[in-house]
Amino acid sequence: VLERQFRYPVDAVMVEFPAGKIDPGEDTLACAKRELFEETGYTAAQWVRAGVLHPVISYSTEFIDIWFARGLTAGERKLDAGEFLDVFAATPADLLQWCRDGRVTDAKTLTGALWLQNVLSGAWALDWRADAP
Amino acid sequence: VLERQFRYPVDAVMVEFPAGKIDPGEDTLACAKRELFEETGYTAAQWVRAGVLHPVISYSTEFIDIWFARGLTAGERKLDAGEFLDVFAATPADLLQWCRDGRVTDAKTLTGALWLQNVLSGAWALDWRADAP
Repeated sequence: VLERQFRYPVDAVMVEFPAGKIDPGEDTLACAKRELFEETGYTAAQWVRAGVLHPVISYSTEFIDIWFARGLTAGERKLDAGEFLDVFAATPADLLQWCRDGRVTDAKTLTGALWLQNVLSGAWALDWRADAP
Repeated sequence: VLERQFRYPVDAVMVEFPAGKIDPGEDTLACAKRELFEETGYTAAQWVRAGVLHPVISYSTEFIDIWFARGLTAGERKLDAGEFLDVFAATPADLLQWCRDGRVTDAKTLTGALWLQNVLSGAWALDWRADAP
């Protein structure tokens, strides 16, 4: 599940994985579930944490945890006021092609593509667990 | 060729590909050559641009061009004043393992690993060209 969203800083519509900022006191799994639901309407039966990236280690403490979700159920999304984005499904092959041809240049999405490729090939196993209620 | 460098913002020694900021008026290939030489002492016989990443599309115009270099010749590096980093060689398999186990979390290096994996597998071809003098 991907999103198309206009990003003012780079003045372009970017293809991205769903993501968002942690609320105060929220853990990253809760944040991942909330952002997936708010932005796409999907809930997931299983979640697993893959890894973390630091977008700009030269000047920021910012980090992004990467979570995989499966067993998706579609629902009604709840966008923030002023948030506009398209949600669409793509195959892993399409996503990787877009990483190659420059249509995907967002760091968290490129890193997610590295994980997706290696998880799907069986090279990197994930420890899936059922979602707590 | 990788580097280990202490990064104050994340308070850790990070494993990274060589990289650096563009000087005024410099193109990204000239920058890549200069940074590779200054930080590692290596010069390369051939260069090719792979792609670009945007580390933080939500709040910055920052971009990082990814360049591949081959035909490396070792020389004497020229670190900036106050710059301290270790240079070392690693196999692609080691690098990918470190991306998986969380030893590599730097966005540009993770994205470089995605490119390296697909270039080495033959999935993504690069158009190598000899370095202009």
